[in-house]
Amino acid sequence: MIRLPDTNDPAPYVARRRRLAALLGGRPALVAAGLPRPRNYRANVYPYRASSHFLYLTGASLPGAFVLVDGDHATIYAEPAAPDHALWHGPTPGADAVEAATGCPVRPLAELPAAIGERPTATLPPPDTATAEVLMAYVGHPLAVDPPFPTDEVLFDAMIALRLVHDPAAQSELRRAAAATAAAHRAGMRATTAGAREWVVRAAMEAEIVGRGMSHAYNPIVTVHGEVLHNDVHHHTLGDGDLLLADVGAETGGGWAADVTRTWPVTGRFSTTQREIYGVVLEAQRAAIAAVRPGARYRDVHLAACHALAAGLVALGILRGDVAELVEDDVHALFFPHGIGHLLGLDVHDMEDLGDRAGYAPGRARSDRFGLRYLRLDRDLSPGMAVTIEPGFYQVPALLEDPERLRAAGDRLDRARLAQFADVRGIRIEDDVLVRDDGAEVLTEAVPKAPDEVEAAVGMR
Amino acid sequence: MIRLPDTNDPAPYVARRRRLAALLGGRPALVAAGLPRPRNYRANVYPYRASSHFLYLTGASLPGAFVLVDGDHATIYAEPAAPDHALWHGPTPGADAVEAATGCPVRPLAELPAAIGERPTATLPPPDTATAEVLMAYVGHPLAVDPPFPTDEVLFDAMIALRLVHDPAAQSELRRAAAATAAAHRAGMRATTAGAREWVVRAAMEAEIVGRGMSHAYNPIVTVHGEVLHNDVHHHTLGDGDLLLADVGAETGGGWAADVTRTWPVTGRFSTTQREIYGVVLEAQRAAIAAVRPGARYRDVHLAACHALAAGLVALGILRGDVAELVEDDVHALFFPHGIGHLLGLDVHDMEDLGDRAGYAPGRARSDRFGLRYLRLDRDLSPGMAVTIEPGFYQVPALLEDPERLRAAGDRLDRARLAQFADVRGIRIEDDVLVRDDGAEVLTEAVPKAPDEVEAAVGMR
Repeated sequence: MIRLPDTNDPAPYVARRRRLAALLGGRPALVAAGLPRPRNYRANVYPYRASSHFLYLTGASLPGAFVLVDGDHATIYAEPAAPDHALWHGPTPGADAVEAATGCPVRPLAELPAAIGERPTATLPPPDTATAEVLMAYVGHPLAVDPPFPTDEVLFDAMIALRLVHDPAAQSELRRAAAATAAAHRAGMRATTAGAREWVVRAAMEAEIVGRGMSHAYNPIVTVHGEVLHNDVHHHTLGDGDLLLADVGAETGGGWAADVTRTWPVTGRFSTTQREIYGVVLEAQRAAIAAVRPGARYRDVHLAACHALAAGLVALGILRGDVAELVEDDVHALFFPHGIGHLLGLDVHDMEDLGDRAGYAPGRARSDRFGLRYLRLDRDLSPGMAVTIEPGFYQVPALLEDPERLRAAGDRLDRARLAQFADVRGIRIEDDVLVRDDGAEVLTEAVPKAPDEVEAAVGMR
Repeated sequence: MIRLPDTNDPAPYVARRRRLAALLGGRPALVAAGLPRPRNYRANVYPYRASSHFLYLTGASLPGAFVLVDGDHATIYAEPAAPDHALWHGPTPGADAVEAATGCPVRPLAELPAAIGERPTATLPPPDTATAEVLMAYVGHPLAVDPPFPTDEVLFDAMIALRLVHDPAAQSELRRAAAATAAAHRAGMRATTAGAREWVVRAAMEAEIVGRGMSHAYNPIVTVHGEVLHNDVHHHTLGDGDLLLADVGAETGGGWAADVTRTWPVTGRFSTTQREIYGVVLEAQRAAIAAVRPGARYRDVHLAACHALAAGLVALGILRGDVAELVEDDVHALFFPHGIGHLLGLDVHDMEDLGDRAGYAPGRARSDRFGLRYLRLDRDLSPGMAVTIEPGFYQVPALLEDPERLRAAGDRLDRARLAQFADVRGIRIEDDVLVRDDGAEVLTEAVPKAPDEVEAAVGMR
């Protein structure tokens, strides 16, 4: 379960730890990797994944380890291997190998309490309490802080400042994740055949990711019921007239994510109505990507997509009225209830463990408006930030039957016209975008997207 | 994340709950399904897997639910869906659907404390403390027991008595897992090519499992370094003269496991030395399977394999001396340090959450002997039990350099002769076996195993 960085260059990790130390003004900070989580019993664990903060600072997957950033010095503290470890798990990379890969010396975990002493120490906890408890029990005392892992706003804000802007090493990992994800989507399109189950397509996509030594960044959505936003079942049969929505992204060995959605026709041919709605969603995505540039407020990127979507639905006769008013009244959100995207990095929703503190700039908070409530990000964009752009169109029964939403729409919704688009249950088009000095770079442009291109990729037609 | 049994027949679950109630003499018992475990942040969870005890009694995957077996009555208590659940997760199977599939009425979790009242209640905890804490916080008081989830030996023994002997529904699930696993191993052999990485073979195997709507029962081992018993990395390149060891098993949607290992030559041709050792391991497996019958003690099955292995190594000139003495002195364990197998069922090491209480019959305990220390099972076999039979031969540096092990071997180990078998780092051959009235049935016999058969399956040669 130990994994060291693929490259033999510790420089990016050294630099990140130095920048963190500078932001902390010399206060020590302790960041936990976390322990494997049991699946059905203690020895049968889920694939180990170190915490993103630990990965950011070391590049290494070291179960149960901590990194202590202490002024100019950083040290990894790791549990020594059990006596019969070598029998079951083979030779473990020694302290030398870990130091060479991370640029950080390694000491036994038992030495950590003495290294901290009585100094107040900022801590970033592992992602679950059980892990924290086990580690605390091992270390033997509450690490000079009480309760053991309090929130520490200075450390949180320092990690956010660092991780918001991706350095060249991070960008390179994001590109690797994007390339594997592109291969997965092409494989999924190729494997699509009417009559098969959704899980056959999922398997074909997963094989491309696993076959590159990577894993899923999140549980894949591969479904003919795209109107269920977080659909996590894959047992439906692909019907002739169905659209298949696949939201699948790879995660590199170092933990960096991609997050891509495509929607394609099972037969390899969009119906006229499917092609019309697909075009509207694609135009909304184009408008949002065009709005991505340094200084742009992400909520305005969201609203650019909302306007384009509303305009498209007016042109199709599904909505009526003034486009700006439709968006102000959240009528468009009847079909596009979620946000245009989120931060992307080591987490697919980057730093969501820190809550809206990461996604929302100081002084900004989530809106109560239905059409803005689910927006995970509202910062001004700057070069080096990575975000997703993922507009959609869904016919969600829970919304189309919601009296409050229908009241907001009033006679601006033409249900008779909408009924003609019954073969569109859900379409989402999602790419990963890197903010650059001169605008936006789509990291995932190798994934087929234009309708003709998508049709050609399905079943290799 | 909710999954109901594939069949529409609740009878097996009703019968299991009735048998449990009878064994408990009317005392109430509470069994937790457990909650999803976070991967990197709270909303990004590992694929949900309900606890095996809950799956056994209900067949259903219901995050956060409990089943209360209370005399003649059983009730599932589940958290009601959040208000915006339908938007993100679609329509949830209603109480009616869960009741039809499980034969068990469903009530809101908030009603659970009142249903228990002040009665002492046996509990089976979810597999991690974090889950227990979250559930306890929801229920609001410590469920009439203190500490919240103590061990309860009567309930543990009742579950063990039930789960040791597989009813027809359980056997049918084990057969489904075995069939998917056979397809995975054939695909892995077919995908093997010198120069590829191990993860390419892993991906091909996984695609067969995922493509049937199943998952891994445990983290797959696919490695040219079979001498590392629990190897969990897959980045090595397949070399021309290498053997590839794959320990991969499927888990059905209902949670039932298969556990199969095969070892095959990367080129599709065993070398003479590889074929010789493979034959010895195969003969050890044959001897162990022949020893499986009702009434047989599992430790004797283990010892049958040890004797056959020692005899084979003597015949090859790697070991010298009397076979019985070699086994008594654990000289064979230099090459076969682990146990011949374990219980198989809903867990790949079935009921290992209950410790050796499940694997060891009352009055029996683990031996201190090196050659018996890692044996996970020592019960008398009875019809309906499922076990693995998995002998191996490994050249583990940590053992071959261990002074204590070398002292035990003395001049009975011919290191010069052993050196001629340097192209055999690790071989394991593992099948799943069901104990029947008249002996043993190999559930996984569809996986290629005879050397010629294996060679033919590699790269479709």
